[in-house]
Amino acid sequence: MAVNLVAPDASRLHAVQGVDIGVAMAGVRKANRRDVTVVRLAEGSSVAGVFTANRFCAAPVLLCREHLAGAKGMRAILVNTGNANAGTGADGLARARSTCAALALHLGIAPEQVLPFSTGVIMETLPHERIEAALPAAIADAAPDHWAQAAEAIMTTDTMPKAASRQLQIGGKTVTITGISKGAGMIRPNMATMLGFIATDAVITPALMQPLVKDLADLSFNRITIDGDTSTNDSFLLIATQQAGHAPIDRLDAGDGAALRSALIDVAQQLAQAIVRDGEGATKFITVQVDGGRDVDECRKVAYAIAHSPLVKTAFFASDPNLGRILAAVGYAGIDDLDQRLIDLFLDDVHVAQQGARHVGYAEEQGQRVMKQAEITVRVDLHRGAAQATVWTCDLSHDYVSINADYRS
Amino acid sequence: MAVNLVAPDASRLHAVQGVDIGVAMAGVRKANRRDVTVVRLAEGSSVAGVFTANRFCAAPVLLCREHLAGAKGMRAILVNTGNANAGTGADGLARARSTCAALALHLGIAPEQVLPFSTGVIMETLPHERIEAALPAAIADAAPDHWAQAAEAIMTTDTMPKAASRQLQIGGKTVTITGISKGAGMIRPNMATMLGFIATDAVITPALMQPLVKDLADLSFNRITIDGDTSTNDSFLLIATQQAGHAPIDRLDAGDGAALRSALIDVAQQLAQAIVRDGEGATKFITVQVDGGRDVDECRKVAYAIAHSPLVKTAFFASDPNLGRILAAVGYAGIDDLDQRLIDLFLDDVHVAQQGARHVGYAEEQGQRVMKQAEITVRVDLHRGAAQATVWTCDLSHDYVSINADYRS
Repeated sequence: MAVNLVAPDASRLHAVQGVDIGVAMAGVRKANRRDVTVVRLAEGSSVAGVFTANRFCAAPVLLCREHLAGAKGMRAILVNTGNANAGTGADGLARARSTCAALALHLGIAPEQVLPFSTGVIMETLPHERIEAALPAAIADAAPDHWAQAAEAIMTTDTMPKAASRQLQIGGKTVTITGISKGAGMIRPNMATMLGFIATDAVITPALMQPLVKDLADLSFNRITIDGDTSTNDSFLLIATQQAGHAPIDRLDAGDGAALRSALIDVAQQLAQAIVRDGEGATKFITVQVDGGRDVDECRKVAYAIAHSPLVKTAFFASDPNLGRILAAVGYAGIDDLDQRLIDLFLDDVHVAQQGARHVGYAEEQGQRVMKQAEITVRVDLHRGAAQATVWTCDLSHDYVSINADYRS
Repeated sequence: MAVNLVAPDASRLHAVQGVDIGVAMAGVRKANRRDVTVVRLAEGSSVAGVFTANRFCAAPVLLCREHLAGAKGMRAILVNTGNANAGTGADGLARARSTCAALALHLGIAPEQVLPFSTGVIMETLPHERIEAALPAAIADAAPDHWAQAAEAIMTTDTMPKAASRQLQIGGKTVTITGISKGAGMIRPNMATMLGFIATDAVITPALMQPLVKDLADLSFNRITIDGDTSTNDSFLLIATQQAGHAPIDRLDAGDGAALRSALIDVAQQLAQAIVRDGEGATKFITVQVDGGRDVDECRKVAYAIAHSPLVKTAFFASDPNLGRILAAVGYAGIDDLDQRLIDLFLDDVHVAQQGARHVGYAEEQGQRVMKQAEITVRVDLHRGAAQATVWTCDLSHDYVSINADYRS
């Protein structure tokens, strides 16, 4: 069902020096599936993260924030699928702490050096004993080349694992960037039920890590939406193991730093777009680009109004060029002084609307041709400034309803 | 498919003195259906309206605002279904003006005394000649007891006509209130593809009309949502023909004025709720009530976050008590300092979550029992103030996708 998405080739997911990954079956929600992932990080690794803006954030998100704010370096990541440990109150927090303590004991580190992640159903009790019982198997499984296994072990309603990998040369050394992500519903800006992990062995000044992870999120995971629901568990982590042996990167706006940033953006965007391509029930991958705004914020408002509109999304599903629905979404995006007489609308190369009305040269067949494609770019020009924003989304299909109506059954 | 909605009994829709209604077939979009409605208003009628907040508002909305702002009294309403005359630029405006001029000529009034309304597909050219050709038949059909016919003639994807009627006594005189409305997609606060017309023969000081129509909209049509899409054509009109013969109502907060306001609210809420009951693909009617907010605005934010969430709506469709999705929606509603540890969640009489976590006494069967009902109240208590807000919505079903994927075919 996913749109132009193929399962990652494990042989092309490069190992990152200083990162070992092991998976195991804990039976969190379903038997006989790998649902627990342990990632070990070499001493000296730098880690930064961005987390859901949902005020109802999950217990593991609270703990990640707490641990990252502490003085100790992070040495391990523990991910379970099948249960989000959200809406679980003080009990959920205690259970998440227990899993961190258990893993820490096995690895000879402090509980505050473990970052926990959970994804799955909300408001159900985390079976923490089962996760803890699976830790020895996950630790025994740990190896540098288990990225593909991890990509699979963190899936929920995803139909396909998501991973991306790149290498570049810095100061004569090979630097590797490898990442994994998962969706697939509750996807919207400021994170989603989405988990994203990117690791690199690049040597990066630790002070750059937090602004960098925020920058990467803004250019990737914060530009996607499937259903507009911001989940309780969204997390995106950037890990630099500092093992590649080149001179430290202390700026990102020029030279090797800029090249590294660019490669990281590439990986982050691949992972983010993969989530949309595998959006629940997705049959189309849609890029919404808004040009000519006064500032990026208003461009984003318009782009998200289009990307969230159920009417627009069902029209894409039907390959129906009912394009007035896009104009209607532009109109209610919240720009109070928008002048509809300035708006241009394009569907790929087809000029659909000019100055707020149907373009005189537009014929339904042109729209129909583009709507039938699996990948479509909607471009709106507001003609009121020079700012621009892009958002990636998918259509709304029968399968979205089926998946979400039947998720727990 | 509509939820507990029955077609109005024509014999119970009381005529309003000073209002005559005629319908005709113009073939705007489909042949052999009544798609044009003409409403004649007695001289001296007071009319006030509220219109879509969409910046891409349709040509008839622009004309209604222009005509209502003029000095002349309104004498006629012209409604067509099948074509929204939106996204049609200067040409659409000219065509709407042409229909007003044609009707004015037939009735011997000025074009500025006609209020035009269009509903249907966006961004297609209005076949104004066909509408104008049907005017003589509609005028010939005009009669005081044609409310049911009008309710049917303004439908688009509605499965059932919507009308409500009440009478009350003021100063020994019988005062009538009768109204009609239509939905059924693109329904959200600040109006929708919705049209609503309420007429009364009550004698009301004209200066009260505009605040009154705003008040009524805020308590009815601005409290409903189906898919969160604000349409280009939403309009709600209040007409007072001033014919009932009682002493003029010059205040609405006490005595006869309060009784009249209360009866008007009742009719407006019936018409608004009927739109939700007949929401595209609706199988459930859901009342979302948010208590304990600091102000009404934040209560509305939370109520709409719940009412718009595709995940919540598909769970209702499936009768699946996956109620953590409601907590997640509360969490992303946009209240920055919300404390999740204070939140209570109720489903009808079932206490689902307490202090932000699953209630200890909650059992899945209780949630399941309520979720199976056709009418459900979701109540959230934020425990941070005394404000309250209520919104009415429906579920998101396979049929919503089918209806909107196939609308034009």
